[in-house]
Amino acid sequence: MDARQLLDEAFGAALAAADPARVLPAALPEAPTGRTLVVGAGKAAAAMARALESAWPGPLEGLVVTRYGHGRPAAGPCERIEVVEAAHPVPDAAGREAARRILELARGLGSEDLLLCLISGGGSALLSLPAPGLDLADKQAVNKALLASGAAIGEMNCVRKHLSAIKGGRLAAAAHPARVVTLAISDVPDDDPATIGSGPTVGDPTSFADARAILRKYGIEPPEAVRRHLEEGAEETPKPDDPRLAGSRLELIARPQDALEAAAEVARSAGVTPLILGADIEGEAREVARVMAGIAKQVRRFGQPAAAPCLLLSGGETTVTLKGKGGGRGGRNAEFLLALAVALDGLDGVHALACDTDGIDGSEDNAGARLAPDSLARAAARGLDAKALLAANDAYGFFAGLDDLIVTGPTLTNVNDFRAILVT
Amino acid sequence: MDARQLLDEAFGAALAAADPARVLPAALPEAPTGRTLVVGAGKAAAAMARALESAWPGPLEGLVVTRYGHGRPAAGPCERIEVVEAAHPVPDAAGREAARRILELARGLGSEDLLLCLISGGGSALLSLPAPGLDLADKQAVNKALLASGAAIGEMNCVRKHLSAIKGGRLAAAAHPARVVTLAISDVPDDDPATIGSGPTVGDPTSFADARAILRKYGIEPPEAVRRHLEEGAEETPKPDDPRLAGSRLELIARPQDALEAAAEVARSAGVTPLILGADIEGEAREVARVMAGIAKQVRRFGQPAAAPCLLLSGGETTVTLKGKGGGRGGRNAEFLLALAVALDGLDGVHALACDTDGIDGSEDNAGARLAPDSLARAAARGLDAKALLAANDAYGFFAGLDDLIVTGPTLTNVNDFRAILVT
Repeated sequence: MDARQLLDEAFGAALAAADPARVLPAALPEAPTGRTLVVGAGKAAAAMARALESAWPGPLEGLVVTRYGHGRPAAGPCERIEVVEAAHPVPDAAGREAARRILELARGLGSEDLLLCLISGGGSALLSLPAPGLDLADKQAVNKALLASGAAIGEMNCVRKHLSAIKGGRLAAAAHPARVVTLAISDVPDDDPATIGSGPTVGDPTSFADARAILRKYGIEPPEAVRRHLEEGAEETPKPDDPRLAGSRLELIARPQDALEAAAEVARSAGVTPLILGADIEGEAREVARVMAGIAKQVRRFGQPAAAPCLLLSGGETTVTLKGKGGGRGGRNAEFLLALAVALDGLDGVHALACDTDGIDGSEDNAGARLAPDSLARAAARGLDAKALLAANDAYGFFAGLDDLIVTGPTLTNVNDFRAILVT
Repeated sequence: MDARQLLDEAFGAALAAADPARVLPAALPEAPTGRTLVVGAGKAAAAMARALESAWPGPLEGLVVTRYGHGRPAAGPCERIEVVEAAHPVPDAAGREAARRILELARGLGSEDLLLCLISGGGSALLSLPAPGLDLADKQAVNKALLASGAAIGEMNCVRKHLSAIKGGRLAAAAHPARVVTLAISDVPDDDPATIGSGPTVGDPTSFADARAILRKYGIEPPEAVRRHLEEGAEETPKPDDPRLAGSRLELIARPQDALEAAAEVARSAGVTPLILGADIEGEAREVARVMAGIAKQVRRFGQPAAAPCLLLSGGETTVTLKGKGGGRGGRNAEFLLALAVALDGLDGVHALACDTDGIDGSEDNAGARLAPDSLARAAARGLDAKALLAANDAYGFFAGLDDLIVTGPTLTNVNDFRAILVT
């Protein structure tokens, strides 16, 4: 068994398990007697739209918004569904205009029609439409304050949904009385439908009062327009029991767990024991790496938690706190791998691969990187100081210097991070 | 199965597996025709000496040094071996004087005699004797600079051994031509004999030139006396092939892995699948907790990496980087548990226990703490803010407020940290 090949195949299988062309057709609902309107947002939007065009038995029309550079599926461009590109992660006017048009299209549907909503990671920023009376700058100011406040993700989403004209079920309510079917690719913890793309078609149990309480709790003084909007009885988000949402259903067509299971199957076929440690592993990338190094060492030394050869698989999203003076290069998966290299210190028999499944790990062009037992030694021979580069958050410099970056380009899907450690 | 009881029993089994009274007798060497001199250092020194007194068939005499408060084994005080208490982790005059006497005693041995050396965690600080011409302040200045430099533990040990009169095999060399048998309890990664208590009876492959290169590498300007000592041809540490060490052998009588295996057996007997993730897991305590939370969630949701009920076991030593304004209270195991509580957010069916096996987790009197699914809710009801206490590194305040501290007092052994997460 070639270690590098096995890891590449495992990653390939993970991507395939999240490829809309493979997983979307089986999830299609029945065609309506009326019109089929396709809308959507996220890094996978164009690929989902293209897969839908290929598989849908009847007429359709629509508009989806995706990230710049993510608009052209490998299978070819969309022909009937318009694809707009916009900014991510900070929303721009192109995304706002697309969101406005999507909401307007949805409002035009009748009871015989179907709204097919294609949601994937990144959808929240791409489908960003401030509530009436607010502008993007207002929302951004609050967003920034929330991010700095230490508020939990659920708290941030509550506030965001109450500043939006389209999130938190508002899109589905706008489509009423049409039937609404959402096909979603999850990149979030627990695959929570209300969190994927901020749940434009999912009822929202939180209220304006909750949003105000959260801002108070964290001592956030919002812009005047936001303060007024939250207090003066603007229209609430649709609640989960809102009758307008009664006909709305959501299907997860790909999840991080599915990608890990597909990689596990590759391992099994090669006689390697797969061990899925978690589809939702969070933490500082370099510290997660130290824990994974400890587990890999245990496999080598004691055959626990599984005997070698085994493949330690995990998903989820690590974080990188910048320590160096620069802005950091390479992304969280490359940083994870560099920290893993330092922690393993050349331990024999351990190979690894870590990539963002969306194909873009950080600020550069790499999806991730790969690691071999000789990586540290090869780096030293080329004058690359692993510890210094880790301290500078420059994993890109390390793996580029070794020619060990993985560059896929945008994959047009997104089931979050993919980490695989092969212990032989 | 009562979750709390199972965790307590697992921890009890881990401690028993490292109890000198249980594991030392089986490891005793043959008695010599001459004298038997017992020396030793570490948190387990008194308990090891007491176990030896009970099991040794012939006459013996000796001196061991242990930490303040660790001198009185539960089985009763030593009667023939003198037990001295000294400071840890910062050495004091009591430890230095004990080290001086130990070295002198060893020098008095002849070829028919046996030196029985009892080493355990903490031994390095407790058995601290500056090389001739140096004083404790010199060593401490270098130690402090090394700790701040980012030097690897192996590099720090190289320098330390070259500033010591007793470390790095010098004790065994002093005992030549006596036979030397070291019984060690490991609290270090890979159970490396040269690292446990800085290996006073283990040959040292490093040299004065290495020590100088390390100080240069990290730009450390040592005190003048240290500089001179490292350059002016002081006596080298005995090398691994030194003939004086040819008769020296070391036996590990307890390791972190043994403690985890004993806990695993408790789980197995209760019908719970044990999963030993690593005997040597390192990383920032709160980040290690987030990874473990992710694994526990995977067990609950997908029955991976093992089906519930299962017990996730790990050892090793996490670190705590102080974030709060105070000095931090509770230790790394309590901080790990508090971060685990925050990450799990009350997840049903997950109980946990984390303790330092030496019985003292940090600056307070607790060995560690325990966690239940209702811990966060009970804390909130008592006005304890888990996130705020974690931010202040005050896990002691959190678990003391819940009456969930584990207080054992000094256990008189030390196989590093013990973490157990029961997922039902």
